[in-house]
Amino acid sequence: MTYALDEKTFYDLVNQRKIDTIVEMVDFEHSADIATLLDKLEADMAWEILSRVEPEEQASILTYLSNESQVDLSELIGADQLSKLMNLMPHDDRVDLLKRLDQHLQDRVLFHMARAEREDLKLLSSYPEGSAGAIMTTDYSVLFPHLTVREALEKLRQEAPNRETINRAYVVDHERVLLGSVRLQELIMAPPHTPVKEVMEESTHAVQLEEDQEFVANQIARYDVIAIPVVDERHRLVGIVTHDDAFDVFKEETTEDVHRGASIGKIDGSVKDVSLFLLYRKRIVWLVLLIFGNLLSGAGIAFYETIISKYVALVFFLPLLIGSAGNAGSQSSTLMVRALATGDVELKDWGVMLGKELVVALALGVTMSIAVLSIGVFRAGTEVAMVVSLTMVIVVLMGSLVGMSMPFLLSRFNQDPAMASAPLITTIADSSGVIIYLAMASWLLKI
Amino acid sequence: MTYALDEKTFYDLVNQRKIDTIVEMVDFEHSADIATLLDKLEADMAWEILSRVEPEEQASILTYLSNESQVDLSELIGADQLSKLMNLMPHDDRVDLLKRLDQHLQDRVLFHMARAEREDLKLLSSYPEGSAGAIMTTDYSVLFPHLTVREALEKLRQEAPNRETINRAYVVDHERVLLGSVRLQELIMAPPHTPVKEVMEESTHAVQLEEDQEFVANQIARYDVIAIPVVDERHRLVGIVTHDDAFDVFKEETTEDVHRGASIGKIDGSVKDVSLFLLYRKRIVWLVLLIFGNLLSGAGIAFYETIISKYVALVFFLPLLIGSAGNAGSQSSTLMVRALATGDVELKDWGVMLGKELVVALALGVTMSIAVLSIGVFRAGTEVAMVVSLTMVIVVLMGSLVGMSMPFLLSRFNQDPAMASAPLITTIADSSGVIIYLAMASWLLKI
Repeated sequence: MTYALDEKTFYDLVNQRKIDTIVEMVDFEHSADIATLLDKLEADMAWEILSRVEPEEQASILTYLSNESQVDLSELIGADQLSKLMNLMPHDDRVDLLKRLDQHLQDRVLFHMARAEREDLKLLSSYPEGSAGAIMTTDYSVLFPHLTVREALEKLRQEAPNRETINRAYVVDHERVLLGSVRLQELIMAPPHTPVKEVMEESTHAVQLEEDQEFVANQIARYDVIAIPVVDERHRLVGIVTHDDAFDVFKEETTEDVHRGASIGKIDGSVKDVSLFLLYRKRIVWLVLLIFGNLLSGAGIAFYETIISKYVALVFFLPLLIGSAGNAGSQSSTLMVRALATGDVELKDWGVMLGKELVVALALGVTMSIAVLSIGVFRAGTEVAMVVSLTMVIVVLMGSLVGMSMPFLLSRFNQDPAMASAPLITTIADSSGVIIYLAMASWLLKI
Repeated sequence: MTYALDEKTFYDLVNQRKIDTIVEMVDFEHSADIATLLDKLEADMAWEILSRVEPEEQASILTYLSNESQVDLSELIGADQLSKLMNLMPHDDRVDLLKRLDQHLQDRVLFHMARAEREDLKLLSSYPEGSAGAIMTTDYSVLFPHLTVREALEKLRQEAPNRETINRAYVVDHERVLLGSVRLQELIMAPPHTPVKEVMEESTHAVQLEEDQEFVANQIARYDVIAIPVVDERHRLVGIVTHDDAFDVFKEETTEDVHRGASIGKIDGSVKDVSLFLLYRKRIVWLVLLIFGNLLSGAGIAFYETIISKYVALVFFLPLLIGSAGNAGSQSSTLMVRALATGDVELKDWGVMLGKELVVALALGVTMSIAVLSIGVFRAGTEVAMVVSLTMVIVVLMGSLVGMSMPFLLSRFNQDPAMASAPLITTIADSSGVIIYLAMASWLLKI
């Protein structure tokens, strides 16, 4: 029971064309691990290995391959072979693969499939990206309420080889309306002649077809379930979303939020694989927009040109003050955006959070103010040091309150709180900071 | 099959003390939903409702309550009652609750429990936070390889009511060394007299007791499994980690990364509930450290004091240039930190990513440079505009390359890449930006 088919051994064997040895080793490894190794080979080499393993294992490995390798391999092996493999793949994964093929290959694959499978694929591929329908699978088992436990178990036994999971079966009426569900373990514990309707759980949570995928993933996590049924507007069962898909959704949505927090647009795919132009496009929009924010700071400085000419030492502390305001502000906005995303904090908590933030930000400002006071005196004399020190308290407070409030405001107006990105908050804190600093200076230095 | 016990109805019923009605409704709701409603009541009121439902349901609701409510309720009902409820809770959740109680109550709860349960609790609570041992549970089923399928099913039937899951049972030898595992559905499909060892999967992935919880969660996601077994150094089975715990780990670790990305230390618990002092402490460290970075910018400015006195207009563009460098830098570091965290990019991809970043950052810099050129000419004349425009290209390039490389460097020296936070990158970009800007100016303007 060792799983150490290491990369080096594997690629050495490949180079020596020891396909027999590789095929033997493949048997002992998880499909996900084999897929990772095959991902790095050319499609024809990968197929030379893959074609030698059992069809079920082939399909499983294909499922775990990267999008790119899946497409390459599909084009290599052709429609007939591919359609056979797709028959053995989980229904949600095969529809994702199908969508990535070019139209001509798609048509030919569908042509080679049995009618029922073809209809299933067409239906699943028709749901909009990001909806429950787009991530659900149709290979689950259904039971009818009047079946006995013995009959139900017999049905599940027969269907198991073609199902992603039979840990839970869904109970429907003759119009496929969802009535409840029953766990396999309940069935094996119940007396054989009991009707299914007596052992099923009636309160089975379901989600709607058009529901957002993030909501669906959150439901799976919230109720600690392995899968959640998907129903149409008439509460008819149309699919299930399984826990592994919820993981993928979480990963994808978190990446989107994290990127947005740095003013980067939504990127589909790995940053390693996407095109240079896409990366450029997803970054330039906000960078240019923020230029205008930063020009405001410039305008503020221009307005106070006289005082700067007189006290050039004031400029020494400009980066420090606006930088500190921006840093404190990014901290606050990040705390709030994440808390709103996880549900730790809700819109109605704004007042409480504002109160907390006031106290914390004041303490932060005072600490930082003390830290710069002596440096200020040493570098620019008591007068300027006083201005810097006082300004520090005010800009840190201002930056924190803006950073803290912006996500709530966005949320209030039904925008994504994550739009309150670190660069946006920093830019706002910068321009307000400049103006506060120079206004303080001209007031305190009496110019 | 409606799940709409809405908040308002519930709290109205509570205010009218219609406990009977509430208890009836509780039956139709998921424990997680009931827990959310009870979380907002005082402990005595919550117990008035909870005490009226079935013990199994009580334990389930208790499991879903917030940490705070769990502790309040535990103190209210006392050790005897609590120990009975804890007997019905999942083993991993009850140990988390026990750890949160004060020492005196912990001792009394343990005193009231049966010896086996007490030993289990003591053992589970002894594993360090963040390890596989700390998140695993011990309520799983084991089978021996020589049992027949019929005997195995009989054993599982008897144990099911006390197990978190029997979807998969683990096969061990007489010293509890893990030999493999078998899914319940394989057992019900196999002929009754087959020995378990012939239907089990031998290649069952396991993790070590001391393994990091993030690694464990990643394994569960990678292999699409519902649970992963945990073994000790002699490969003896000691527990399992289930998929719902993996979700919690992901959420926790992501929050930690996101916070670190804004230079905030690790916060245990919800930002709404933690103390003001903790929030202060987790934020002040980096804010003060970054002051020194920002002072460098000030020193740079002081060094170039003469040129600033001569061309005060240069100062107008200072916030714009350092702001843009910081923004581009935060984008790059965020992209890399996230890609390293998800595994999209690995350490060895540094060269490729650097090449891509060079091209993208150059394009970003040129675009931004063009955007500010006309404004520069209009506001400060051709000479300064040229300096600003050229500096823009250089600082955006510099900010991006620093932002992109820092996470790799940290990772290379076994530090968390997320330490390359937006504030840190911004501060570095700021001070380098100031110096580049003023050096360019003094060179081009020939001073």
